[in-house]
Amino acid sequence: MKIGLLGCGTVGSALVQLLDDDGERLAQLLGEPLEIGRILIRDPDKLRSVDVPSHLFTTQLAEVIDDPEIELVVELLGPGEFAFGAMKAALAGHKSVVTANKEILSMHFPELESAAAAVNRDIFFEAAVAGGIPLIRALRVSLFGERLSRIVGIVNGTTNYILTQMQEEHISLETALADAQRLGYAEADPNGDLSGRDAASKLAIIASIAFGSYVSAADVRVDGIWGVTPADFDFARRSGGVIKLLAQAERSLDRPDAPVRVEVFPAIVMSTHPLASVRGSFNAVFVEGSAVGQLMFSGPGAGGRPTASAVLADVIDAVKNLRNATRAPMRIVEGTRFVEDVAIDGVFVLSVDVIDAPGVLSQVSEVFGHNYVSIARMEQDELDGELAHLVFLTHRTRLSSIRATMEQLTDLAVIKRLHSVLRVLE
Amino acid sequence: MKIGLLGCGTVGSALVQLLDDDGERLAQLLGEPLEIGRILIRDPDKLRSVDVPSHLFTTQLAEVIDDPEIELVVELLGPGEFAFGAMKAALAGHKSVVTANKEILSMHFPELESAAAAVNRDIFFEAAVAGGIPLIRALRVSLFGERLSRIVGIVNGTTNYILTQMQEEHISLETALADAQRLGYAEADPNGDLSGRDAASKLAIIASIAFGSYVSAADVRVDGIWGVTPADFDFARRSGGVIKLLAQAERSLDRPDAPVRVEVFPAIVMSTHPLASVRGSFNAVFVEGSAVGQLMFSGPGAGGRPTASAVLADVIDAVKNLRNATRAPMRIVEGTRFVEDVAIDGVFVLSVDVIDAPGVLSQVSEVFGHNYVSIARMEQDELDGELAHLVFLTHRTRLSSIRATMEQLTDLAVIKRLHSVLRVLE
Repeated sequence: MKIGLLGCGTVGSALVQLLDDDGERLAQLLGEPLEIGRILIRDPDKLRSVDVPSHLFTTQLAEVIDDPEIELVVELLGPGEFAFGAMKAALAGHKSVVTANKEILSMHFPELESAAAAVNRDIFFEAAVAGGIPLIRALRVSLFGERLSRIVGIVNGTTNYILTQMQEEHISLETALADAQRLGYAEADPNGDLSGRDAASKLAIIASIAFGSYVSAADVRVDGIWGVTPADFDFARRSGGVIKLLAQAERSLDRPDAPVRVEVFPAIVMSTHPLASVRGSFNAVFVEGSAVGQLMFSGPGAGGRPTASAVLADVIDAVKNLRNATRAPMRIVEGTRFVEDVAIDGVFVLSVDVIDAPGVLSQVSEVFGHNYVSIARMEQDELDGELAHLVFLTHRTRLSSIRATMEQLTDLAVIKRLHSVLRVLE
Repeated sequence: MKIGLLGCGTVGSALVQLLDDDGERLAQLLGEPLEIGRILIRDPDKLRSVDVPSHLFTTQLAEVIDDPEIELVVELLGPGEFAFGAMKAALAGHKSVVTANKEILSMHFPELESAAAAVNRDIFFEAAVAGGIPLIRALRVSLFGERLSRIVGIVNGTTNYILTQMQEEHISLETALADAQRLGYAEADPNGDLSGRDAASKLAIIASIAFGSYVSAADVRVDGIWGVTPADFDFARRSGGVIKLLAQAERSLDRPDAPVRVEVFPAIVMSTHPLASVRGSFNAVFVEGSAVGQLMFSGPGAGGRPTASAVLADVIDAVKNLRNATRAPMRIVEGTRFVEDVAIDGVFVLSVDVIDAPGVLSQVSEVFGHNYVSIARMEQDELDGELAHLVFLTHRTRLSSIRATMEQLTDLAVIKRLHSVLRVLE
């Protein structure tokens, strides 16, 4: 079985290494050797650590896609139209595709799945979500018969690393981010992670598979961690919890066509919840189903070898299907309905810095009351002689009311700074 | 697709209910309805909550096994030779088999797998281990390409419930057990759970799949929780941990034919370890692989609906394979080598009650020294005027030295009681 590899970065190199280290054992298990037939690279002069004959490298996509001996293409090119085109071309050439490309999948899943179905080939993507955790296969196969009501998880290792550092070292986001960048846990441009957009792409894929209803990254309501401060962690600690960036997909089980709610947001997670103890760059996904109840999967969310392990699992599954002339079908319906913005509710934490003067608290409280936001708890800290830090924990209320409250707070002269809005995981 | 059901207790009834509730959706997903063709029961007069036509019930195994319309048999009869015979008969009749029978599988796995392979049918058993957690499929498919070095888990919900109660309510094993029995978490005869034998059966199955080397329940070194006392929990708490009954399978990755080590034992688990926070009747399994690193799966370890969910996942997979005229192959080699008793080592906690008199501690310590067991920490508590409770935490040492130490301690006149031996999870 010859495999074409598109891209040879961290994950690609780790995959080549795995196939090399375990080749004999895998050949025995599968009844035939898995062989790298071609590797598409961008820069032929770059020094690579992988140990393959140099004639396998090419800079021409066609030399992989048009090679009739290659039956399976592993796409590890990263975001961009080129990768999307390459996958379509591979499927058009009757090759199965294994990809880790969350960006493309969260935008073009139905098109790729139809293209694969049309030629009776697979498109597998375990590695696109939650690194080494075998989540996608669990959702596709083991939980195929379940009606799932909720998936909530920590699916971005960079932000979880930063939040864990802030929690344990009592440092600011800026310091934690700089540390993470120095240690290679965060990229030079960290906004894709910190804005919550990376988590949104993964959530879109997870929700599509879990509900059988297509969700794109653009459908996800996203709020990142840029505004989270050490004061938020103090408040979370006093409330008995920690702060995590959560990706959550929910659907009522009442009706099969119930609307879907997909969101990424920073939240206070009570320390008794299993997600609270997920530290550092680990990922964890909590699944609730009608019959099974609550399951949790956790493991490394990134890294060359764990991700390559997920790719290898897909490769093995795809090879078996090719040899049995079958494919793993997926029914994902388009035209998903989403819970309307106005119906989104939750328990929120708002914090503001105000001028420390008589009457200020009543001015601020009045804005909450005016928007029918009921306060469950309020805390005040002195900041210095002139400013005070106020934190409000609400009862369950509408997101729209929270937004209106924030807008009106901005207009108050006594408000010096609006901090993050956190949710509380229920 | 007609299914024959053997046994209609808690799990069987829940399965019938699931098929009833979700029949339409499942039929749509699978392209054909799943129908219960026959249900074997022992007592036709027993009142049942399931809603099926009474003509489906039979007390004759042959009416299920010989029905040519039934292509798949779900075996939920529990331990005993009858269930084993029924599975062999079903396979001989070219029916795929889905079972939750950990007792039979942990004793006769190779025979059942060969019988299934001979007729190109599946034998699936997700529900035999860790209830609703999709562990077996993760090991068989997602981690098929991984070289696994260790699996350690909490796979018995009854003992975990009892240990959690002892920890949180500061009560004795006897009290916790009586509570568990009253609430239905423990059986009238709890010895199969408390002795660790139930966990050993599950571990045998897990280890066989994880390592591809047949392990039977008889190969597992088993130590239960009968001896665990509140004093052990106090010691664990002071050490920063909790006590869990662990099932652990280990194999060195150095050589493909390295010997396997399989053990069930009570252990102190540090609270930073993910297994420490697994509470009540939940199960959790921690997996270490060469490429993926550390994964954890957790969820409900028992219960009608979660277990039925695992059975249903197997049913769906088996139906797909039947329709594709294929099966899921499994390579499990017999003749597994096991780590010899003399090579078993660990970090141990021994506790004894002694007469509280001058010179006693030195007498006891001398026995440890004589057996080359080095002490990392010792604690002494007064029990009453005449007795003292001593706890010894050892450095890494051989189990054989611990056994010799215990034997010689028994001979000392000053020793009034030898408590449990705990391990420390590393």
